[in-house]
Amino acid sequence: MRKILIANRGEIALRVMRTIKKMGISTVAVYSEADRNAPHVKYADEAVYIGQASPEKSYLSADNIINAALQTGADAIHPGYGFLSENAGFAEKAEENNIIFIGPPSSAIRTMGSKLAAKEAVSAYDIPMVPGTDHALTNTEEAKRIADEIGYPILIKASAGGGGKGMRVVKTKTELDSQIQRAISEASSAFGDGSVFIEKYVASPRHIEIQVMADNHGNIIHLFERECSIQRRHQKVIEEAPSAVLSPELRKNMGEAAVKVAKACGYRGAGTVEFLLDENHNFYFLEMNTRLQVEHPVTEWITGTDLVELQIRVARGEKLSLRQEDLTIRGHALELRVYAEDPLNDFLPSVGHLERYQIPSGENIRVDNGFETGMDVPIFYDPMLAKLITYGKTREEAIQTMILAIENYIVEGVETTLPFGKFVCTHDAFRSGNFDTHFIQKHYTPETLRSEQEEAARMAALIAVKQYTEDLKKLRIPGV
Amino acid sequence: MRKILIANRGEIALRVMRTIKKMGISTVAVYSEADRNAPHVKYADEAVYIGQASPEKSYLSADNIINAALQTGADAIHPGYGFLSENAGFAEKAEENNIIFIGPPSSAIRTMGSKLAAKEAVSAYDIPMVPGTDHALTNTEEAKRIADEIGYPILIKASAGGGGKGMRVVKTKTELDSQIQRAISEASSAFGDGSVFIEKYVASPRHIEIQVMADNHGNIIHLFERECSIQRRHQKVIEEAPSAVLSPELRKNMGEAAVKVAKACGYRGAGTVEFLLDENHNFYFLEMNTRLQVEHPVTEWITGTDLVELQIRVARGEKLSLRQEDLTIRGHALELRVYAEDPLNDFLPSVGHLERYQIPSGENIRVDNGFETGMDVPIFYDPMLAKLITYGKTREEAIQTMILAIENYIVEGVETTLPFGKFVCTHDAFRSGNFDTHFIQKHYTPETLRSEQEEAARMAALIAVKQYTEDLKKLRIPGV
Repeated sequence: MRKILIANRGEIALRVMRTIKKMGISTVAVYSEADRNAPHVKYADEAVYIGQASPEKSYLSADNIINAALQTGADAIHPGYGFLSENAGFAEKAEENNIIFIGPPSSAIRTMGSKLAAKEAVSAYDIPMVPGTDHALTNTEEAKRIADEIGYPILIKASAGGGGKGMRVVKTKTELDSQIQRAISEASSAFGDGSVFIEKYVASPRHIEIQVMADNHGNIIHLFERECSIQRRHQKVIEEAPSAVLSPELRKNMGEAAVKVAKACGYRGAGTVEFLLDENHNFYFLEMNTRLQVEHPVTEWITGTDLVELQIRVARGEKLSLRQEDLTIRGHALELRVYAEDPLNDFLPSVGHLERYQIPSGENIRVDNGFETGMDVPIFYDPMLAKLITYGKTREEAIQTMILAIENYIVEGVETTLPFGKFVCTHDAFRSGNFDTHFIQKHYTPETLRSEQEEAARMAALIAVKQYTEDLKKLRIPGV
Repeated sequence: MRKILIANRGEIALRVMRTIKKMGISTVAVYSEADRNAPHVKYADEAVYIGQASPEKSYLSADNIINAALQTGADAIHPGYGFLSENAGFAEKAEENNIIFIGPPSSAIRTMGSKLAAKEAVSAYDIPMVPGTDHALTNTEEAKRIADEIGYPILIKASAGGGGKGMRVVKTKTELDSQIQRAISEASSAFGDGSVFIEKYVASPRHIEIQVMADNHGNIIHLFERECSIQRRHQKVIEEAPSAVLSPELRKNMGEAAVKVAKACGYRGAGTVEFLLDENHNFYFLEMNTRLQVEHPVTEWITGTDLVELQIRVARGEKLSLRQEDLTIRGHALELRVYAEDPLNDFLPSVGHLERYQIPSGENIRVDNGFETGMDVPIFYDPMLAKLITYGKTREEAIQTMILAIENYIVEGVETTLPFGKFVCTHDAFRSGNFDTHFIQKHYTPETLRSEQEEAARMAALIAVKQYTEDLKKLRIPGV
């Protein structure tokens, strides 16, 4: 490869370009109307305008991006994450134009993009899944039999539901009869479809994912786990590697399962296999993300690898130089997604102008950043400003360094998830490792954050008054 | 220790405080008039004003600093580097006041502070020194006999000289007679003292230093070498670890010699043993720096250690938890000192106001920074803005990442050593590892730098004109 087009924007475009440049390969940025002066445009060797600010007109326009690649003579495309990164049609269109898509084969994207196809693909590989029915039920007798098999608590889901609608948790067998009838009749009247699914209810789930990397020569390795249980609106906000709770044996088992999932879909490149972990440390396959993950830096830090470099190497046909036995975990890494969101107001986006923006620096701190003072946070895109990543020999050290880095991160003009990050890092449940994906519902109290911020503001005011009084004294005005 | 006072300013005060805070210990900053609003003052838990801007009145005033420690109840002092860090009297004064000095015993500072005492201390340990006379000579016959013993080329130094004055290189025996007589008579007339020393002339020296760490329980380890041969005005500007030229055997021998030097002076804490390496890879002991070194981050990166944490642990009496056999070199790290100096004007300080100041970030980049946009670079102190440190699995990768980081470092308002750093990193002699302390004299041509900068300015202007023309077109003014 001599020239790679990066079909993305913001911090991930910059992060991918840093590695491409390090490898001595030319970079082509693409940009929308809103990103004309964005850092990723300035950093690239070349930049091509691909359309209006709305994503459909630019970063989601496969044609505009392929044309930009053809026009600049790019021989490969790196899609980053989001946008077209998991679009099989885009990957095919690139290959049809003799442009290498730095990602998995389109068939693997397609398989893992469909829950049903994914389930079918991995069925031969003995991958644990959340136990449940694989077809819709309409009669209570069958439901009872299956519930007995699975064991309580179970979850009843309306086939036509979604996003939590039409879901009921059944805790004991005695409740089942009435609950299942009620579920079927509710589903009939609400969705016009009375069929339901039953699956095991995981009461206290942790989100654990395994990073895999595969080449074109049959080699697949895993690079251990990331724990991503701290979420708001079902979206990750703090991630770490390794997880605080995995035993070496469980890590090995989950890693091997992830490698099998990759094998099952003929994978190539970097991918992430997501699992649910229950209180008893049983794990269940959820889905596979067929791209570079936002939280890849924590894995890079504890394994000493550059995942983007590995992506590029396998995409150009090289064999993986790392073998499974070469990989060890060294230390602990933590990532906070610094979103322009208001943690006191239900994490709603807080777009606006960055009056002042200064990232922390120093040993054991990495900031994958996409912004600078004076820029606007555009309303068109994901409002992530940067990823703040810290490292320590131990988990405790990484957390401590994260707290200090948050305190040294200056953002004026928009609200951010930084104070929320500090809330989590100083919370006993997080520090002890005893938490799950319900952390926010269980433990987060915006009031605590609000009163802390008010206290900080009060202290700052007091200090300012003290300074002012001292300055007044120095003026030596008689009588003061 | 519950509270540590940091007797320093700028990036090193911040760097030391980060580790202290990480360890859960309180911090006390001290500041001069010029540093009232400096970042290190804002970052500390407490801050004490210690006097006027001139160093003698503040950062060099042992009394003011001890008083600040007593006043705030600090039970230890970290001196950083420079200022009072190698002042035995200051260390003693601290101990007299029951304040722990985070550094070696004052006796070790004193021994290594005197070339003669240092030489005497290590004499029993078989440490190689640059061969030469250990007493002043006044007659040519003795000089000839010694020169024959040492072997040519030799260096004749006037006893009363210094800083390169009164030095002559003698390449062959036939030149010696006339040169030695001239040297003696010149020294007589210039300094009123005709005595001279003779030592072996190392034509192409490299500056290699070994990091050592010692506890109070008899354990001394070394953390491998740093190469610091790229210097301007005999001051380091680029450092790296490991050196590009040391064999494992030579590394082991130099490491063992450094440990012996530390043993010879009853060392405790972090220290650096400096050696000269000649073209044939013979090494000679130069001196020992009895403090944390500016360039310590490169060692931290390749060994995965926190040297400030180790300093604090051994100062409070802990045993070293690392053994020599635990330490391995992982990858390669490079440091550029970002000075506010003009590389086009003989590296003269370039003080002024930082109109814009933005540090690079991302994977494999560490910036130990002391400045921000809007600050002035004060004339009273060393004009170092920050240390830019990069890492790579290989030396080539660390260099490549350094070049990209330099390109992404924005400083407006003062000149800096950043363009010089890029000059070095792109120079064949540096990249091949074939360089010595004369790099600047041999290879540096400010003209090259100047023409590159002019070319860059020209390109920027062209791009601006092109953009302007495009913007004009969009206005669709008829006839344009």
